[in-house]
Amino acid sequence: MAGLFEYFCKEEARGWFLDELERNDMKARVYVMLKNGVLDPQGEAVRHALGSLGFDGVEGVRQGKVIELDLAEGTTEATVTDMCEKLLANTVIESYRVELS
Amino acid sequence: MAGLFEYFCKEEARGWFLDELERNDMKARVYVMLKNGVLDPQGEAVRHALGSLGFDGVEGVRQGKVIELDLAEGTTEATVTDMCEKLLANTVIESYRVELS
Repeated sequence: MAGLFEYFCKEEARGWFLDELERNDMKARVYVMLKNGVLDPQGEAVRHALGSLGFDGVEGVRQGKVIELDLAEGTTEATVTDMCEKLLANTVIESYRVELS
Repeated sequence: MAGLFEYFCKEEARGWFLDELERNDMKARVYVMLKNGVLDPQGEAVRHALGSLGFDGVEGVRQGKVIELDLAEGTTEATVTDMCEKLLANTVIESYRVELS
């Protein structure tokens, strides 16, 4: 009887493990950068700081954001683009790029 | 005489154009993300906001930084790594990745 119980437990665990493997979540990466011509004070601050630290030859710095999203299986790129348009990027001054994996 | 002058001007312009082509500045891109296990309030805020906007199936969000550097020709990856260690990333809580192009 104990053996039977153990057997079921193992089966249960195996099923769960396979489910986890199969779930195989989608990942999306969104890169948001300020558009060219938009002043980037953060980038300028970094450039200045690098100069102060003795790193020569840094001609320009621009700083942006990366947003990594764990998504449910089946989410389309269109949905992620929609997220960017509505929340993740300010499309007046920022451009974005979506990478799905 | 005017012809000679024109010829020199053209040569000058050609030289400048070739210099510009050859300068071919290096670009480095540094991605800085919070390490796993470090609380990411910005990411959590984005996840919550996406939920409020009706985007279901967003299981996790992590937000990081991209830093694009325009570098003088001949800058090595070691130099960029050094910049990361000294300024761009807080290596106690952040991990970074360097891409040269």
